[in-house]
Amino acid sequence: MKIIDYREAEPHVVESGEMKGVVGRIVIGKADGANNFCMRVFEIPKGAVSHHHAHAWEHQVFVYSGRGEVLREGKWVPVQPGTVVYIPGDEEHQLRNAGDDPFVFVCLVPSSAPEM
Amino acid sequence: MKIIDYREAEPHVVESGEMKGVVGRIVIGKADGANNFCMRVFEIPKGAVSHHHAHAWEHQVFVYSGRGEVLREGKWVPVQPGTVVYIPGDEEHQLRNAGDDPFVFVCLVPSSAPEM
Repeated sequence: MKIIDYREAEPHVVESGEMKGVVGRIVIGKADGANNFCMRVFEIPKGAVSHHHAHAWEHQVFVYSGRGEVLREGKWVPVQPGTVVYIPGDEEHQLRNAGDDPFVFVCLVPSSAPEM
Repeated sequence: MKIIDYREAEPHVVESGEMKGVVGRIVIGKADGANNFCMRVFEIPKGAVSHHHAHAWEHQVFVYSGRGEVLREGKWVPVQPGTVVYIPGDEEHQLRNAGDDPFVFVCLVPSSAPEM
């Protein structure tokens, strides 16, 4: 059994562009023997966004802290701690920070997806 | 895309025993078209525990709020908001509230497991 604070996992930091400062961490993945799905935690700093894209695999998201917005069918929808987002495969999506504090969320993908 | 507060999902409440008052919610599952894995959110009230058991499928847990403890190889390990727990298949485990407020965590299972 693995028990860690998510901040102990290795950070992957985006160095430039509109995603500058976004931090992603693989907190449970294939390296742990988790072969069905993968848990990542992302921190989006003030003013930053995630990729605007679509892909074949789904996302399951749980918002941990901060204020954010999710792009759904061209409209930005506010999300906050306790919000759950299910993004089916092939649906366009983007997340952005809408507050002053880091926007932190858990995002899970199936084993068919890249872990980061 | 589904966007909800986890508290909007139907609560499943344990009515008796040491798990009395534990609330489980399926927030993303097969009913949403999520066929690879399932997200549930559990609230364990003060003084309550989850099942002490083992089963073939794994758990991926993210602690959202409150204070808890996780039984790992016979020892109770403290967990708090931001803690990640990976429980491999067939490993005995149990979670309990170790504070005064509800202990709330996200718990994901693969599609081979019962959703609740």
